[in-house]
Amino acid sequence: MEKLDLLYEGKAKRIFRTNEEDVVWIQYKDSATAFNGEKKEEITGKGRLNNEITSLLFDKLKQAGVDSHFIQKISATEQLVKQVTIIPLEVVVRNLIAGSLATRLGIEEGTKLEQPIVEFYYKNDDLGDPIITEDHIQVLQAATPEQVQVLKEKALHINEVLRDHFLKSNLRLVDFKLEFGLTNEGTILLADEISPDTCRLWDMDTNEKFDKDVFRRNIGSLTDAYNNVLSRLGGGQHV
Amino acid sequence: MEKLDLLYEGKAKRIFRTNEEDVVWIQYKDSATAFNGEKKEEITGKGRLNNEITSLLFDKLKQAGVDSHFIQKISATEQLVKQVTIIPLEVVVRNLIAGSLATRLGIEEGTKLEQPIVEFYYKNDDLGDPIITEDHIQVLQAATPEQVQVLKEKALHINEVLRDHFLKSNLRLVDFKLEFGLTNEGTILLADEISPDTCRLWDMDTNEKFDKDVFRRNIGSLTDAYNNVLSRLGGGQHV
Repeated sequence: MEKLDLLYEGKAKRIFRTNEEDVVWIQYKDSATAFNGEKKEEITGKGRLNNEITSLLFDKLKQAGVDSHFIQKISATEQLVKQVTIIPLEVVVRNLIAGSLATRLGIEEGTKLEQPIVEFYYKNDDLGDPIITEDHIQVLQAATPEQVQVLKEKALHINEVLRDHFLKSNLRLVDFKLEFGLTNEGTILLADEISPDTCRLWDMDTNEKFDKDVFRRNIGSLTDAYNNVLSRLGGGQHV
Repeated sequence: MEKLDLLYEGKAKRIFRTNEEDVVWIQYKDSATAFNGEKKEEITGKGRLNNEITSLLFDKLKQAGVDSHFIQKISATEQLVKQVTIIPLEVVVRNLIAGSLATRLGIEEGTKLEQPIVEFYYKNDDLGDPIITEDHIQVLQAATPEQVQVLKEKALHINEVLRDHFLKSNLRLVDFKLEFGLTNEGTILLADEISPDTCRLWDMDTNEKFDKDVFRRNIGSLTDAYNNVLSRLGGGQHV
């Protein structure tokens, strides 16, 4: 497999074309950003950690019957994935109230939800990724009503798998953000990444945070936190 | 009917108890506010205009089979209404994209929607009346899922009646905000007001604005605009 020209550079990853049609080459960057890019830092090791954690979790999901764009990890910071057209929605699943939902509803962070909820955000940096309703998705023509139902079902299923998996590592899956893509055949595939950048993970006993809130809120070392997650998931330690 | 003690003072109205159980006395104020109270002005005549327009529209809705809390107008700035417990939701119906939706979706103001959409906002000044999903309504216990369905159906029906009614006055009903209340028996009744404070109204031919955007955006005289609406609806002119 050959890495060809850069297709897209996002805040956390670079995506390259390859010599194989329908396969792209993802390189995880060491950039940490928050608040729509307002807070930004280079953190050595972050790319490697998110690449490893994402690879472990996509493998775990595959075992549970959830297909994703993930093909294989090819280096510490790189992986091969199937090329998809990203649906411009951030699909957020919440088990507890935290972050923007605590602010939106005026309810204390850490409050448990009776059942998981799914939210949609319009993936658009210029607009600040606003929360949108299912009607808005139709106005934007971002997905059909049928696709929205599939996204919700997939997101809730992934939540069940990941919640149980993190529980075994004594981590509480508070909430997380997913992105999905469409293959050329129109199949919806889980895409992007699943890492402490995109999940809130709290220790079951102490509620200590092991996710990007460590960076957002300046409450410790991001690499210590992410290494902790990787180690709990059975991945290799990095000194 | 006697006006007794003040029950509640909002940004645009005062509500008094009366000597009759289940009836309250509403006094429309001359205060104009926008942006969650950040912009504020006293505008002589505004209370009278909104009282008259609201009374005309609640009468019109009643003729079309839509019950509301409205009993009768009793003076230029006052009306009697049934006492209800306000459901803490702002129910917004949109026929065209304007205001916060234009900003949220990055779509030009004035774009027509293929079909009307209903949005819910959590009525909470401290939180800035945030937009919320139907799941959030359950988390907040603001209304049951069955009540949410009733609110949507009522809102869309009211939209049909009002849109046709304004059309006869050569006004386009762009969008509007409703509030509903619960009677002691648990019936959902349309409440609050329907006025150029709560509706966007544009001239069908010129798109000239005859609503609170005149005040929000400093593009003319609020009383001229509201008098124009009242006059088109067949109400009395005020010099």
